[in-house]
Amino acid sequence: MVNGEKLILDGNAVADSMKLQLEGRIKRLKERGITPCLATILVGDDPSSATYVRMKGNACKRLGMTSMRVELSASTTTEALIAAIRELNEDRSVHGILLQHPVPHHIDERAAFEAIAIAKDVDGVTAVGYAQNAFGYADYPSCTPAAIMAILAYYQLPIGGKHAVVIGRSPILGKPVSVMLLNADATVTTCHSRTSDLAALVRMADIVVAAVGKPKFVQGDWIKPGAVVIDAGYNPGNVGDVDYEACLANASAITPVPTGVGPVTIATLLKHTVHAAEKLGG
Amino acid sequence: MVNGEKLILDGNAVADSMKLQLEGRIKRLKERGITPCLATILVGDDPSSATYVRMKGNACKRLGMTSMRVELSASTTTEALIAAIRELNEDRSVHGILLQHPVPHHIDERAAFEAIAIAKDVDGVTAVGYAQNAFGYADYPSCTPAAIMAILAYYQLPIGGKHAVVIGRSPILGKPVSVMLLNADATVTTCHSRTSDLAALVRMADIVVAAVGKPKFVQGDWIKPGAVVIDAGYNPGNVGDVDYEACLANASAITPVPTGVGPVTIATLLKHTVHAAEKLGG
Repeated sequence: MVNGEKLILDGNAVADSMKLQLEGRIKRLKERGITPCLATILVGDDPSSATYVRMKGNACKRLGMTSMRVELSASTTTEALIAAIRELNEDRSVHGILLQHPVPHHIDERAAFEAIAIAKDVDGVTAVGYAQNAFGYADYPSCTPAAIMAILAYYQLPIGGKHAVVIGRSPILGKPVSVMLLNADATVTTCHSRTSDLAALVRMADIVVAAVGKPKFVQGDWIKPGAVVIDAGYNPGNVGDVDYEACLANASAITPVPTGVGPVTIATLLKHTVHAAEKLGG
Repeated sequence: MVNGEKLILDGNAVADSMKLQLEGRIKRLKERGITPCLATILVGDDPSSATYVRMKGNACKRLGMTSMRVELSASTTTEALIAAIRELNEDRSVHGILLQHPVPHHIDERAAFEAIAIAKDVDGVTAVGYAQNAFGYADYPSCTPAAIMAILAYYQLPIGGKHAVVIGRSPILGKPVSVMLLNADATVTTCHSRTSDLAALVRMADIVVAAVGKPKFVQGDWIKPGAVVIDAGYNPGNVGDVDYEACLANASAITPVPTGVGPVTIATLLKHTVHAAEKLGG
């Protein structure tokens, strides 16, 4: 979608293209008696998390895949959560496991992530999955970083030799997208809350990735004319981490919220689950 | 050591301080009947690799530790190498395993690294070790990156809020040191052979880490006045990746070669092996 000289990076178009490719693969799996199944685990009753899990389940259904929803109370212990994950690891009808984060504070999230079998880690949250992604050969890189790369690829936006500035350093977003951009030959600067003069660094960027979790954090005058702006944030009220209208003025290409990175993240999760079903069988 | 206004970051001083702390720990282990043992594996007859392995073995001996040298011919298969590693994994007298790299081209180096038990991965080369380091809780981060952090800590050079520019993106040096600096609250730019206008980026750096493997690659006029320069390179003829004399002119602090990062890397390896012996016992 082109808005004047601006390219609006429509995540729905990318997601639709990915799902189209999945349809044939799912059909062939079903001919073998295998229906790809994503198990989602929701701990507690955070309404946004519940919405995310529901969206993922619905997306599975629309493609003819199965989703299994495991819902645990907010008082679930780390041990009980790990036991539930291990059951899903053993369940041959389950091909992918997604633990919706954040989990309640009393749970050891890292221990829970590590309990997911690497062969079913379609969200790329285990240590081994993280490292395989950093080394450039992961089957299942973290879904949001992989979605960002898919958007850049779909719109044929060059990465090699470009300077990418990533704002955020979380283990599921800022860090893995930094290393994926690096593996795609970008020069990568990773910024965060302790960065001095963030605006000056962002102004150098050919590609800006906002993954900071603060509404409208990235300002229009931080964007170098012609830069590509990827907004991986999603805050209450359908607001991203980027001041969209202001950044649109300088950017050559930009993802909107909520129809940018979000739908591609879900499509990536489905793609990984189909891939896992192909590898694991029934 | 101060040279005029310049701080020469003497790796021998850092290494000596680390070894001093290890002496008491080794003594206590020996009282329990445990002598920390590092197994080194050398495949083929590359003279530099043989020298490195010998240096590591000698460093063990000087501290009263044991080193076990496994030497395999250049024609060793991946399978045979992995079998040798598995034997060391099972050997209760061995606490740390170091596979000297590079290995000959026909060997699947990644598969060999992954065969090392995480509990004995004192060189931080496995995927799990890599990710634990990225997440900030590794027992054994890669030795050269950990040595760089130890030098900065020893000389009390601040990292938080500083802009670090790392030149190099290898899985054992550029990538892990980038993430360690990031975890220490630096803003980190990782550069490489595809970086456009490297000199301009390096000129922004408060901390420069050269890990590129090209003699005297980093030029004096790339260094911002007052920057800290860490040379992790080691090229034939005792030459680093930094044009030392030229960079000294602008830097506030700089590591020489060969008495900078090198000795601290070896001391780090010894420290990790002692730690492994404390954890694994005899």
